[in-house]
Amino acid sequence: MAHHPSTLPAVLAPVITPFDAKGVPDTQRLARQSRWLLSHKVGLAVFGTNSEANSMSVAERIQTLQALIDAGLPAEQMMPGTGACAVTDAITLTRAAVQAGCAGTLTLPPFYYKEVSDDGLFAYFATIIESVAHPKLQIYLYNIPPVAKVGFSIALIERLIKAYPQTVVGMKDSSGDWAYTESVMKAFNGTGFRMYAGSESFLLRTLRAGGVGCISATANVNPGAIAGLAANWKQPDADQQQSDLDRVRSAFQRRPMIAAMKAAVARYSGDTQWAVVRPPLVELSPDERDGLFADLDSIGFSIPGL
Amino acid sequence: MAHHPSTLPAVLAPVITPFDAKGVPDTQRLARQSRWLLSHKVGLAVFGTNSEANSMSVAERIQTLQALIDAGLPAEQMMPGTGACAVTDAITLTRAAVQAGCAGTLTLPPFYYKEVSDDGLFAYFATIIESVAHPKLQIYLYNIPPVAKVGFSIALIERLIKAYPQTVVGMKDSSGDWAYTESVMKAFNGTGFRMYAGSESFLLRTLRAGGVGCISATANVNPGAIAGLAANWKQPDADQQQSDLDRVRSAFQRRPMIAAMKAAVARYSGDTQWAVVRPPLVELSPDERDGLFADLDSIGFSIPGL
Repeated sequence: MAHHPSTLPAVLAPVITPFDAKGVPDTQRLARQSRWLLSHKVGLAVFGTNSEANSMSVAERIQTLQALIDAGLPAEQMMPGTGACAVTDAITLTRAAVQAGCAGTLTLPPFYYKEVSDDGLFAYFATIIESVAHPKLQIYLYNIPPVAKVGFSIALIERLIKAYPQTVVGMKDSSGDWAYTESVMKAFNGTGFRMYAGSESFLLRTLRAGGVGCISATANVNPGAIAGLAANWKQPDADQQQSDLDRVRSAFQRRPMIAAMKAAVARYSGDTQWAVVRPPLVELSPDERDGLFADLDSIGFSIPGL
Repeated sequence: MAHHPSTLPAVLAPVITPFDAKGVPDTQRLARQSRWLLSHKVGLAVFGTNSEANSMSVAERIQTLQALIDAGLPAEQMMPGTGACAVTDAITLTRAAVQAGCAGTLTLPPFYYKEVSDDGLFAYFATIIESVAHPKLQIYLYNIPPVAKVGFSIALIERLIKAYPQTVVGMKDSSGDWAYTESVMKAFNGTGFRMYAGSESFLLRTLRAGGVGCISATANVNPGAIAGLAANWKQPDADQQQSDLDRVRSAFQRRPMIAAMKAAVARYSGDTQWAVVRPPLVELSPDERDGLFADLDSIGFSIPGL
């Protein structure tokens, strides 16, 4: 199981990206938020779906990563998203991440063309890996068919692991399909493949089945409790902890998730700029926001220390 | 109906993109192919879906466009694709196109996030238009829900036309849903909105319903005949011409379309480099290729003058 030693923690957040008054990624706010997440033992899966990363240009993503590194954030706690539709973009992003010392990359399949073949997807990842050609590159496959509409078959994962055993080291599975998650772990746990659930809803089940942890949107707003369960999952109160996590998640999940998390961070930090999202996303309406806040108050939830 | 004077012809090809032995877009081959298309009165919708444009980086697309301009290809016959997931990329691409003098842009909705709101899509296009802020910008909305999984509601089109009457001038509709195409024409023909069918299968119907023409994959391989129908659609043999077009299209459509067109261009030009596609697409297998060529031979089809 230790084929792929990693400095990454059990829980990472796809860190939400703050935009300044001009709509530009705000690296100062992001660095502050990242430090706060790390203080809760949550790692930095910057440039994920919940980071609106695919709404940012390649240059914006690389400049933002460099700004975090320059601000002293630890690359060994980072798994930046490097997904793109163009393999040339994915190469550029992946190279930047590994050269910055990031512990891993979280890489989407190319998601413009649909119903592509496993041969084509294999060629895409092979091209990235052979072009970047860095011995420390560790790629996590990012499976999120509800959004990307392109996924990873078991046969494709097997082929990638066999061809690149030191590089294709794990997966974030946001399929929401536990049967799939479980089948991937059953097939590949023995090779040291590292499975992160795509949401803390599956955290306890994933850990019990030999997975590593989770990379979850809600880790942006509930980091301490999620990292707490990952640390204490063998304790007798683990199921209770899981229920507590689920209750918080459900309040966010009932609204557009990214806008809801940003609204909550804006509320608890007192910094309204946090509520801004990039098109095509929109902020919560006043009614949606009031409903979210009421739900959070009713379960006694708040975000301390923001 | 003449609200939006345009230099663009009735038929455009989403020009297939040749890649050289290193996998780089080959601007010389592309310029030659583009000239051949123009000689058949087919315009240049470079960087469409069939151009594998979303498999190219922003820099590759801009450099390729500039190379075509430098090679003397006429910008007034060009409608480059400027779609992206990131509004910042769409702004960069759109600005480059309008500054190069292109007669229009073909712009996808942002296609990473699914089930986004009309408000968010409106904000995305408004941001592009107001950032580029060029009086000559003419945007064609690119509706292709089978691939992008994000489309344009009638209400969204109406809102865009009302807000930007000089800029949002038309659509390429690749929905394959004639009821939708017809409903858009019924709603907006009166404003001068220019409808291009997404395939020549709908060419005659589109012209008869007040549309402008088509932007079709198959125009890469059958340009003369498609442009011929667009020029002669009021003639008594128009329905026969439409049937002839359909027969050719069907031979290509039975295989992965982009690889099939490239295989055909490679065959008839004798230039095998044309067969190369970028991941995640793959070339036709030998069997698929033989089947395509046999089908084309059986209907007496070839591409002269390539």
